[in-house]
Amino acid sequence: MAPPIESRRPELRKDSVTNRWVIFSPARAKRPSDFKSKSPAPSSSDSLQTCPFCIGQEHHCAPEIFRFPPQNSDWKVRVIQNLYPALSRDKGLDSSTSLSSDSLLWGCLLDGYGFHDVIIESPLHSVHLSDLTPEDVAQVLLAYKKRILQLAGDDSIKYVQVFKNHGASAGASMTHSHSQMVGLPVIPPSVSTRLDSMKQYFNQTGKCSICHVPTKDLLVDESVHFISVVPYAASFPFELWIVPRDHVPHFHELDQETAVDLGGLLKVTLMKMSLQLNKPPFNFMIHTSPLQALDSDLAYSHWFFQIVPQLSGVGGFELGTGCYINPVFPEDAAKVMGEVNISI
Amino acid sequence: MAPPIESRRPELRKDSVTNRWVIFSPARAKRPSDFKSKSPAPSSSDSLQTCPFCIGQEHHCAPEIFRFPPQNSDWKVRVIQNLYPALSRDKGLDSSTSLSSDSLLWGCLLDGYGFHDVIIESPLHSVHLSDLTPEDVAQVLLAYKKRILQLAGDDSIKYVQVFKNHGASAGASMTHSHSQMVGLPVIPPSVSTRLDSMKQYFNQTGKCSICHVPTKDLLVDESVHFISVVPYAASFPFELWIVPRDHVPHFHELDQETAVDLGGLLKVTLMKMSLQLNKPPFNFMIHTSPLQALDSDLAYSHWFFQIVPQLSGVGGFELGTGCYINPVFPEDAAKVMGEVNISI
Repeated sequence: MAPPIESRRPELRKDSVTNRWVIFSPARAKRPSDFKSKSPAPSSSDSLQTCPFCIGQEHHCAPEIFRFPPQNSDWKVRVIQNLYPALSRDKGLDSSTSLSSDSLLWGCLLDGYGFHDVIIESPLHSVHLSDLTPEDVAQVLLAYKKRILQLAGDDSIKYVQVFKNHGASAGASMTHSHSQMVGLPVIPPSVSTRLDSMKQYFNQTGKCSICHVPTKDLLVDESVHFISVVPYAASFPFELWIVPRDHVPHFHELDQETAVDLGGLLKVTLMKMSLQLNKPPFNFMIHTSPLQALDSDLAYSHWFFQIVPQLSGVGGFELGTGCYINPVFPEDAAKVMGEVNISI
Repeated sequence: MAPPIESRRPELRKDSVTNRWVIFSPARAKRPSDFKSKSPAPSSSDSLQTCPFCIGQEHHCAPEIFRFPPQNSDWKVRVIQNLYPALSRDKGLDSSTSLSSDSLLWGCLLDGYGFHDVIIESPLHSVHLSDLTPEDVAQVLLAYKKRILQLAGDDSIKYVQVFKNHGASAGASMTHSHSQMVGLPVIPPSVSTRLDSMKQYFNQTGKCSICHVPTKDLLVDESVHFISVVPYAASFPFELWIVPRDHVPHFHELDQETAVDLGGLLKVTLMKMSLQLNKPPFNFMIHTSPLQALDSDLAYSHWFFQIVPQLSGVGGFELGTGCYINPVFPEDAAKVMGEVNISI
């Protein structure tokens, strides 16, 4: 049995996926069940009149890439270009950097070619992702899949990051429910670190680290094809992972049936988080494999979903060290999340 | 000459120190000179009555470690224990984790032994670090040094992270000017990555990467012993580094004269940031070498100061990839910082 929180010692934990030390610090903890958001994400009803993501306002958006159902004015999901893209979808003709050549030798510089798209998750302004049916959440997931497969046709694109920012303090600039994806011309640093770490675990144990993610004391929910857990060395309070039971390296291998199953578990997870943590702003990220992953890398590479409620910001310690201080032990977070039953 | 911002293409840059891709994205930029904080850090005058960091309120604080000048009730700087330490300064007798043993095999777990101290930078509540004279800033820097040397006597402590959070959105819970330091029983992940990256640059070029930090277009200020620059691949808008001109691996090699020189440049840098960016919340971090660095590692390891104004939060893209999107090109940030002259 776990000792009472008051007498617990701090711990440092590092998992075999992110390879990052996390400090679990009981002295900095409130009671886990009191750890509610003080700034819940606003409801989406505040800017209905002027929202370009709403049905009927499509002409105010950047160009559409596709919609579900196709060619239907009564759409459920739209994938559009980001009006303020981080990268340029046109290839640059030559290097136009304003940096002097002697600086260049100090690092690496690449032209900013890539894709930055927006997935509008619902035609209606006041509907959040967790309000959708599992089938409609599946449509959003399958829109990610379709767009990733399109980007995979471009040899310059090495990795696609799918993410969602919900609430201003989680980075969202629009309240209408949406997610984003960026097709990058490089493998990002956290992805390289994750793959190296998972490879090391595989070489040491002969097992995929995600197939063997610890569930004792940490399991929150299960569906036919997925489980949700608080990760062993969660960087953030009440961080959750949704993990496919089967060993699948790429998110875009998702099929229709699995997508509906995932849609249901994602919906339940977001509803639980909303209920237990007072509608917190949150981010989610899909961690998948590089588009052109080698066959030899696919034995240890296994995609998963990471959901992070934004309950506290980061400071100089995290910026300096890359370590996080988490006041809530994962096994306590799993208990709080397991306390509530939601049927959909 | 730099092309106008509007026609610039995005760029990806990676430097030889942090080894992290940063996306510079003109489409997401406002004019650099308009990039002011919308939530300036509050002045410190709001909670004078109850502040335990104020002179005369020492009995409300956690135990003192030392003060400058020593044994003087008219102190200038105090180093005290953090009342809510992330780590425990008492060694644990045995493993008291509540995690089951089969979970343990999936990662690493260490007892949370370490030190978490607070440096009170001024006896007066309304005085910020940048209000102090260069000599008084030097006292703060020399207090860091003294405490690091004390921690270096403990073989269990591998690295000391000195950092400052100024303003609530930068992570500060107290308005009275202070900084913090954490003595860690591990080398943190960002430090390992930085050292590996600097070592690689050294092996490829025979040079220390920090000794050769690019200054063309990026230099902001110079003093006798230091320069300040916007780094080539700044992760954050208007991020600044203060770099010792001499090759010095450890911050704690700082002497009195150099400390006063650094105190002056740090003061000027914070004043410029405050003036040009509307008193933004900020973090600073000292990046140094591990306490027990090998002699062979000292050829490429060179300490520096990183200052980050908190102008925008991070979202799912940054959490997922470890890449940052910076809307302000470093050479533009250097121009904005260079526009203002401050004499002290």
